[in-house]
Amino acid sequence: MSKKFIIAVDLGGTNLKLGLLNLDFKIIHKEVLRTRKFFRKESLISAIVTCVNTILEARGLKRSDILGIGLGLPGPVDEKNGIVHFFPNIPGWKEVRLKKILSKRLRLPIFLDNDANLMTLAEYKLGAARGFKNSLCITLGTGVGGGLIINGSLYRGSSNAAGEIGHVPINEEGARCNCGARGCLEAYIGNSRIIQEARRLFRRDISLEELSLLAKRHNRLALNTWSKVARRLGLALCGVVNLLNLDAIIIGGGVANAGEVLLDRVKKAINEQAMSVQAKQVKIFKAKLGNDAGLIGAAILVKLNS
Amino acid sequence: MSKKFIIAVDLGGTNLKLGLLNLDFKIIHKEVLRTRKFFRKESLISAIVTCVNTILEARGLKRSDILGIGLGLPGPVDEKNGIVHFFPNIPGWKEVRLKKILSKRLRLPIFLDNDANLMTLAEYKLGAARGFKNSLCITLGTGVGGGLIINGSLYRGSSNAAGEIGHVPINEEGARCNCGARGCLEAYIGNSRIIQEARRLFRRDISLEELSLLAKRHNRLALNTWSKVARRLGLALCGVVNLLNLDAIIIGGGVANAGEVLLDRVKKAINEQAMSVQAKQVKIFKAKLGNDAGLIGAAILVKLNS
Repeated sequence: MSKKFIIAVDLGGTNLKLGLLNLDFKIIHKEVLRTRKFFRKESLISAIVTCVNTILEARGLKRSDILGIGLGLPGPVDEKNGIVHFFPNIPGWKEVRLKKILSKRLRLPIFLDNDANLMTLAEYKLGAARGFKNSLCITLGTGVGGGLIINGSLYRGSSNAAGEIGHVPINEEGARCNCGARGCLEAYIGNSRIIQEARRLFRRDISLEELSLLAKRHNRLALNTWSKVARRLGLALCGVVNLLNLDAIIIGGGVANAGEVLLDRVKKAINEQAMSVQAKQVKIFKAKLGNDAGLIGAAILVKLNS
Repeated sequence: MSKKFIIAVDLGGTNLKLGLLNLDFKIIHKEVLRTRKFFRKESLISAIVTCVNTILEARGLKRSDILGIGLGLPGPVDEKNGIVHFFPNIPGWKEVRLKKILSKRLRLPIFLDNDANLMTLAEYKLGAARGFKNSLCITLGTGVGGGLIINGSLYRGSSNAAGEIGHVPINEEGARCNCGARGCLEAYIGNSRIIQEARRLFRRDISLEELSLLAKRHNRLALNTWSKVARRLGLALCGVVNLLNLDAIIIGGGVANAGEVLLDRVKKAINEQAMSVQAKQVKIFKAKLGNDAGLIGAAILVKLNS
């Protein structure tokens, strides 16, 4: 009997998601656990193993029904050798041979990559970047991550670390970023910075959701906040577009839920500031696959490599 | 008899160079004319035609000895259709079907591309970028240009406009650039800006050559000037390296003659500020092929496409 399913794992700082997908990347079954429940590396790995086995049992599947397991991981990895270098937001992981460990315990082919690459792969194969052979997918959240499609394939760079749009500097005199450098895009438009800025303007606590809602209702302070975010994001993207002459930029992640308020302003910034040939070529879209992009991308990774 | 030679043309704002190269890209014969002698587009085209015919005659070559003619051009071009969009520094060229015009008048296969792409191709095939499958070649001169090698091939982007490292912004509050945007790298480290900065410090006229010489002799003001250039260049390159996870960056053009004074400081800036995986991967070299890179690249273009 031929393989019919793929198991996908999407590990984030907050949630650990597992999904069973068919070969058309439709999610048939999904489990969501809290990442913080598993303090130690070993318990997190065991949770993945247990959950995979549970899914197989619950669905009455044999190992021979499964093409492989794909994992999307929140940090730099060596995707060829299946090694996790480290996770910026989950302590205790350093040069972990995760592929080897899971292969042994699950007796299934294991593939892994970082979450931004898999989101990008998903948006390119099934989402908003479909058909755009040179494109950048960005996730705007706590951090600002990204992945690149170049000449129709995921571009990994020389050590699988490409795509770090969050760490493109936009101000030589800017604030320190978590990465140690100065004036990185992430230091301006990461989640917490946007909320910080909004609090200053509104003189009260305010969530991103409220900030988006108020902007849709034309609240001046909220529009101001989003204009600033768009100006900074637009500036970094001008550099990227001038350098890479892309077809499309896809914007996803929680912050992208601001929607047109943000996207229209980013488009304007690029049209005004990028070079004419490049500005004319590039299209800006909101990501399509939302929270499932990680699972779908992990499943695509398995299929591409099987 | 099989084809033995390639004719290469390198058009710059100052010089129009023509070369006869063998199939190993050795320059056998070279002519240099002043671009400004040819005010009108037609006279410039005629000069190229005449010069090609003169070279053929002088060397006793027939058209059947020539594989093709490659042209490196100082502005955005449609390399597929052989159209010059415009030249920023040579007036009178707008959407010129140069390939068609020259094919007709010279009865030889014509290939063209912009000079930064051809310099990059030359450095990758025969120069400092050899063997580095993901690399950026920069020319530092009046303008700051560049080209990208991605996965072992010249990366052109979606409309042959990729590589514009000079128009990556490094300061959201920066000075206006010629391109219309704000804070572009070129607005800080173009030739004239460096000389302007040096004049301010030295309180007298000073050339780039003297500035390099003084720095080699440890003159404090000269070192300060180069440190500033390196800091800005390094910052832009940090963004590029974080985004593209390159193997190598090759620095050429007149300004690069400052040599180690500049390169060492750029390396330091990248090591200090780029992300660790990316900084560890990338090497910084001075370009190897110097003023002949344009001719060599144009000849490589012909061979690659023949």
